Amino acid sequence: MIKKSLPMNVLYAQSGGVTAVINATAWALIDEARKKYGLIGDVYVGSNGIVGVLEENLVDTKRIPESVLARLPYTPAGAFGSCRFKLDPPDKNPGPYERLLALFAAHRIGYFFYNGGGDSQDTARKIADYCHGRGHPVRVVGLPKTIDNDLYGTDFSPGYGSVAKYIAISTFEAALDVASMSATSTRVFILEVMGRHSGWIAAASALAQKRPGDPPHLILFPERPFEAEDFLARVRETVESRGFCVIVASEGIRDPGGRFVSEGGGRDAFGHVQLGGVAPVLAQLVGMRLGYKSHWAVSDYLQRAARHLASRTDWEAALAVGRAAIRKALAGSDGVMLTLERGAGPHPRFRIGEIALDQVANRERVLPPEFIRAGGYGLTPVARRHLLPLIQGEAPLLYADGIPDYVRELPRRWLKKRLPSFAAR
Amino acid sequence: MIKKSLPMNVLYAQSGGVTAVINATAWALIDEARKKYGLIGDVYVGSNGIVGVLEENLVDTKRIPESVLARLPYTPAGAFGSCRFKLDPPDKNPGPYERLLALFAAHRIGYFFYNGGGDSQDTARKIADYCHGRGHPVRVVGLPKTIDNDLYGTDFSPGYGSVAKYIAISTFEAALDVASMSATSTRVFILEVMGRHSGWIAAASALAQKRPGDPPHLILFPERPFEAEDFLARVRETVESRGFCVIVASEGIRDPGGRFVSEGGGRDAFGHVQLGGVAPVLAQLVGMRLGYKSHWAVSDYLQRAARHLASRTDWEAALAVGRAAIRKALAGSDGVMLTLERGAGPHPRFRIGEIALDQVANRERVLPPEFIRAGGYGLTPVARRHLLPLIQGEAPLLYADGIPDYVRELPRRWLKKRLPSFAAR
Repeated sequence: MIKKSLPMNVLYAQSGGVTAVINATAWALIDEARKKYGLIGDVYVGSNGIVGVLEENLVDTKRIPESVLARLPYTPAGAFGSCRFKLDPPDKNPGPYERLLALFAAHRIGYFFYNGGGDSQDTARKIADYCHGRGHPVRVVGLPKTIDNDLYGTDFSPGYGSVAKYIAISTFEAALDVASMSATSTRVFILEVMGRHSGWIAAASALAQKRPGDPPHLILFPERPFEAEDFLARVRETVESRGFCVIVASEGIRDPGGRFVSEGGGRDAFGHVQLGGVAPVLAQLVGMRLGYKSHWAVSDYLQRAARHLASRTDWEAALAVGRAAIRKALAGSDGVMLTLERGAGPHPRFRIGEIALDQVANRERVLPPEFIRAGGYGLTPVARRHLLPLIQGEAPLLYADGIPDYVRELPRRWLKKRLPSFAAR
Repeated sequence: MIKKSLPMNVLYAQSGGVTAVINATAWALIDEARKKYGLIGDVYVGSNGIVGVLEENLVDTKRIPESVLARLPYTPAGAFGSCRFKLDPPDKNPGPYERLLALFAAHRIGYFFYNGGGDSQDTARKIADYCHGRGHPVRVVGLPKTIDNDLYGTDFSPGYGSVAKYIAISTFEAALDVASMSATSTRVFILEVMGRHSGWIAAASALAQKRPGDPPHLILFPERPFEAEDFLARVRETVESRGFCVIVASEGIRDPGGRFVSEGGGRDAFGHVQLGGVAPVLAQLVGMRLGYKSHWAVSDYLQRAARHLASRTDWEAALAVGRAAIRKALAGSDGVMLTLERGAGPHPRFRIGEIALDQVANRERVLPPEFIRAGGYGLTPVARRHLLPLIQGEAPLLYADGIPDYVRELPRRWLKKRLPSFAAR
């Protein structure tokens, strides 16, 4: 039985690939709930996303020491654990949904916040629909987060601005390195960045450009087919005119036949596809066909975990989303995802809005065609104007003995279980 | 004819792989020379190292705008251009040496500073020997610089502390990411770092560790043969006990037969060795043999160009070397390389010394055996105590519109040529 007189508790969980600022959202949500204590109850967090929710592995945040909690907004990745886990539709497998209702009732959950990308918003939608269909009074709100910036319905997603800043600066720095060496050594440098389906991250590599011809000279977007001969001609032309060539390639580029370029390394002796990555395949192509010495880098997790280089604007957006989650849910928001919109609100660069979860789910936002320059290898001025605000400012960082003072492992102060065990996996 | 009454000019050049702080050395040398103006003449800089010196492509630093020069100590890579170029011994090919003497005379060079690693110090030694043998009065001083920290005779080399800080923090951040995802997704993360012959950079990946078991769980040093079966057993053991495994591998690891592991990817259809890198080869091994999902990253130039994460101690050492170059050369130092020694001087963490160039040349300093833990995959406490001081503090950084305000391209204000043309390459 739920006693209506007592305030309801909050359940929050992190889902999907993590970012440099998702913990800022978590902290702001916890902090805002505390300020509203009385109107709202305790904040519990699912360990490893919906998996921990289903298995009743819930962290009781009021039992986390303040000295640890206070460092959370300065810590990258998902301190509570994240997951890649999809719920089957309820008509196919109602068990997890029944379980969630039982859990919400057992722990007096009145507000459920799921912090993730497109797939996670789809999970939130399914849960919201099920709860509403059963007349269960939990308010479900999706919180945006993705480095890929491909969430539909929001102008940008927390996490993207920080990876964008990291890639812009890393490309700038590596380009200065290649320029230094190009007279007698390396002529071509290739940086592989994340973004399997959309080129938002690759686009960010151009944000340090000031004049025409500034590196990166060629950006390979997954929105455009990779034409090897055209690419090679452009590399040669760039080396001949500028002395060196800096290339940024999205991991998701495909040849005109739709095959991932990263599979171009062929198969090994056992018949396995080579785990090559795009950058080494391109480096080999450049070396074989043009004879230039090249270097290549693959940023992988370094780019999305790089809290040391987080954008202050992005960090503030992540904080704003966490605070707004509590305020909006208290005011009645339900079945929605919070969004970030351009224009001044309490923050000079964005304000918080919302969109129905069923409008968000199963949609993906690729780079608008007008962001890619004619020819396909560069960014247009309209794209620069759109993206530059997202990397403004440097998020504050706590250092101790030369190393950022990140939360290493959150003490798992578990909420006492009240339900029989349940295997989510 | 050299007029003895006028002060002699300075020639400086950058050589070998560049670093995050070598421009700090250049700037400090130029600035110190200006303070000693009258005792010392102008400062000229060879473009692209000794290649530009031989070809008489010399930048006249007094003609570089002050607004540009002032940003040099905050800019990574080699702003004057570097080179990978070895001088033949003079008995084999005296031409370049004769050319240097002519150039020194034509531009009244009394001091030649060559800023680089082991090969560059060998070049400095050859030039010093030749000048001294001919009775030419130029003082030759080598300035230390290398990210690899393998220079003999100096306690550490400017450039290393900054790459060490970058690798320590990047490993720490990526490990938090893997820990977040490991419940349902990635179990193993592999970061490939530079260091073909020595494990100094790989060692730095452990500097964020606080407790036993903290990531990285396995470090692969080039000083130890790579035993695949032992490695796989350790990966499995780590994943089973901790849930995930973070591995840092030096690019230079070899199997017990002495073959580079990076060649393990085999040959492509054309018979070329795959430009695989170590990390993808290890990822494939882990996937095939243990079935774990893995991610991998290769830092390459990003690590050595990462001025945004430079160590303040390292940066101050680079500045100190530049200033000491002028002071020591004026006081008579010649045929030596400047060194960094532990202990307080004007700086609390180091003081400047010197060593004869012929003691430095052709020697390499690998990681001392007592730095590597028994078993071969980790760092000892003595190593931590030795390395931690080098990453202390954060070097100041200038930002403009969200991007570091690095010097993009130094205006080449050339010194007027006085010699016939000469092809160095």
